Amino acid sequence: MLPSSNFSKMKAEIITIGDEILIGQIVDTNSAWIADQFNMNGIEIYQITSVHDDHEHILEALKNAEQKVDLVILTGGLGPTKDDITKNTLCEYFNTKLVVHEPTFQHIKKRFTKLKIDMNRLNRDQALVPEMCIVLPNKEGTAPGIWLEKNDTIFISVPGVPFEMKYLIENEVFPRLRNSGKTKAIYHKTVLTQGLPESMLADKLEKWEDALPDNVKLAYLPSPMAVRLRLSATGKDKALLEKLVESEIDKLKKIIPQNIYGYNNETLAEVIGRILVKNGNTLAVAESCTGGLISHLITSVPGSSKFYNGSVTSYSNQVKEKILGVNHTSLNEFGAVSKQVAIEMASGVRTALNADFALATTGIAGPDGGTDEKPVGTIWIAVATREKAIAKKFVFGNNRERNILRSAQTALQMLRKVILKEE
Amino acid sequence: MLPSSNFSKMKAEIITIGDEILIGQIVDTNSAWIADQFNMNGIEIYQITSVHDDHEHILEALKNAEQKVDLVILTGGLGPTKDDITKNTLCEYFNTKLVVHEPTFQHIKKRFTKLKIDMNRLNRDQALVPEMCIVLPNKEGTAPGIWLEKNDTIFISVPGVPFEMKYLIENEVFPRLRNSGKTKAIYHKTVLTQGLPESMLADKLEKWEDALPDNVKLAYLPSPMAVRLRLSATGKDKALLEKLVESEIDKLKKIIPQNIYGYNNETLAEVIGRILVKNGNTLAVAESCTGGLISHLITSVPGSSKFYNGSVTSYSNQVKEKILGVNHTSLNEFGAVSKQVAIEMASGVRTALNADFALATTGIAGPDGGTDEKPVGTIWIAVATREKAIAKKFVFGNNRERNILRSAQTALQMLRKVILKEE
Repeated sequence: MLPSSNFSKMKAEIITIGDEILIGQIVDTNSAWIADQFNMNGIEIYQITSVHDDHEHILEALKNAEQKVDLVILTGGLGPTKDDITKNTLCEYFNTKLVVHEPTFQHIKKRFTKLKIDMNRLNRDQALVPEMCIVLPNKEGTAPGIWLEKNDTIFISVPGVPFEMKYLIENEVFPRLRNSGKTKAIYHKTVLTQGLPESMLADKLEKWEDALPDNVKLAYLPSPMAVRLRLSATGKDKALLEKLVESEIDKLKKIIPQNIYGYNNETLAEVIGRILVKNGNTLAVAESCTGGLISHLITSVPGSSKFYNGSVTSYSNQVKEKILGVNHTSLNEFGAVSKQVAIEMASGVRTALNADFALATTGIAGPDGGTDEKPVGTIWIAVATREKAIAKKFVFGNNRERNILRSAQTALQMLRKVILKEE
Repeated sequence: MLPSSNFSKMKAEIITIGDEILIGQIVDTNSAWIADQFNMNGIEIYQITSVHDDHEHILEALKNAEQKVDLVILTGGLGPTKDDITKNTLCEYFNTKLVVHEPTFQHIKKRFTKLKIDMNRLNRDQALVPEMCIVLPNKEGTAPGIWLEKNDTIFISVPGVPFEMKYLIENEVFPRLRNSGKTKAIYHKTVLTQGLPESMLADKLEKWEDALPDNVKLAYLPSPMAVRLRLSATGKDKALLEKLVESEIDKLKKIIPQNIYGYNNETLAEVIGRILVKNGNTLAVAESCTGGLISHLITSVPGSSKFYNGSVTSYSNQVKEKILGVNHTSLNEFGAVSKQVAIEMASGVRTALNADFALATTGIAGPDGGTDEKPVGTIWIAVATREKAIAKKFVFGNNRERNILRSAQTALQMLRKVILKEE
């Protein structure tokens, strides 16, 4: 690694090994998880590099990383079908050889006995590790993690299977890193906003941003339905950094009081759930064009059964009539995608599922089914309470996937505003 | 780039620019999409590199890439809140300066007029491009794509917003690359298998794999519920490559006839939908622990309204009884997570929504709600037809997200087997 000058924060590089990422067969979610965890623990990810299952290419990546960072995390390239390329290449890089790690061999044997499966040679090879490494025991799988050090740089190899990787990082890597004591304190908080596009928000916040202390950094993170503002403070004392960030957020709240709906990785469904539980209210959903996504988003939150009664996905008109009680004449006169039907769906599901609030969507997600009058992307969203029901029309784009996602997010935003009596 | 020896295939590197990837705030889905598209068009992705919004770091990445590949795709680092770091750094690397691109300026102006929003300085800056570049017009947004060439390497910069990036790659980048005529033919096909873990499959397929022609490569792509086998053939004539891969797949079908359920990026929901449409049958779903995910997976497929009547998410027992007709005594005697209730849910939703087939799930997704007898991860899945109803019990792990996903996938697998009369 380079001389660290007066910079005391550890720098790391993630190297992911596997053709499947480079041919686009899988999305690299491992790196995002690792990066998030490392940042939370005060270690900066300097670079993420994805390379082929190729000896020379991995060697080159290791050499480049060693010159730039204090720590290298390698994922993937382990296991029988990869020829254990990562382990073999690490052996060459460290000028060592593979040896059987007896505790790992016993661990693998035990797993196979329990599963009543015979071990083959390929399974047994998973107990081979570089002779000079520290073995990180993998309770979630068969291939262990590997920890090696060279010229003040730490090299850690973990399997690419997400839950095995996560287990090893949380239970084996971080406890060892914390003992090194080299990490700088960092505090992040992300403010979730809606209702203002990025450039207008940037204009509104310019003065506040310019006045931020030097050790507080602002980043704009746009997404389809929200602009997220991330504040990061670095320093020595985490408690002080937290106080500093919170005081800047207090100023922010005064500039855009209507636009903040949550913080950090909170989802809209979580925010809504928390308000409903606090008020002792229940929710039901009727979905046509969103097809179950709203219900999935709500039930992804642990504890959602406390406020969520359930939903009806009414993909056919028959289900709209029979289960939700939508009028036959409304469907005939206005069509399934109409204000009338959206309102009857919301009121119908609220009554049928006996809830305080109900949300309904009906629209044309595409790619087929559009007309001149109601093009693909036309969506009606309705919210019903015990007192009233309101509906709004939205026209999104031509992409089915995005229409479903935007409809679900927009519906949850509308529900939140009704619950908070902002709409 | 390096001397290409006798290798005629174009090599590319993806450089993603943005702190948000390196701190793990977003998952880099752009790179997977670009990698997939480039591979399909016969261009190999040699490496994916994610770097900070930092001038020096981007320059270093550009230099490294230029030595190794024929084409560099840069995403992100454009727009007002990034200080247009990518454009400014490209100017330095190409020793040129930013100039106003008049057609882009007019395009931005028109968009703002249409949206009835005033343009600010930040919006106007999006019309600035390096003087010596080819501008790739962006109909989906304001920031244009940029195409530059240096020492036989092409550098292309596109915005990081996924749909703008996709529009530019499909409509501006590929048509220009096809004119270069340098790309080698490639043919990929992925075989989707279930029922055998990776190591057992590898044992079974060893002989077949060893006998594959030299220009056909096999890759194992494991995922939670399936093992995917990707065959890639490279050569001159795409039609011949396709024939070659298909003949190898014919051999594979004879080795594992029960384990192949689909090909390429097909989802189980698509496979099921195709069979149902072919047979003129309809489907209904009742979800408890999966909370709407099965319905979402089914309705994500365009045209699903042809066979899908809809679903009921019965999160409360009241909804199970009232809408699905589950017996009060079954709930009391056996509990909501039981064979009896799963079967009554499936039969109930089939009748209520008038479908030929029905699928039901009931289980404990976690993290709370487990008991000694029924721990977190216990799931009952039932399938009902007009003739019969069957149910099976599964015990997954402790992770809510994974339990929901595995339950949904397992339920769809079970449904597929019943429809095909394999179960």
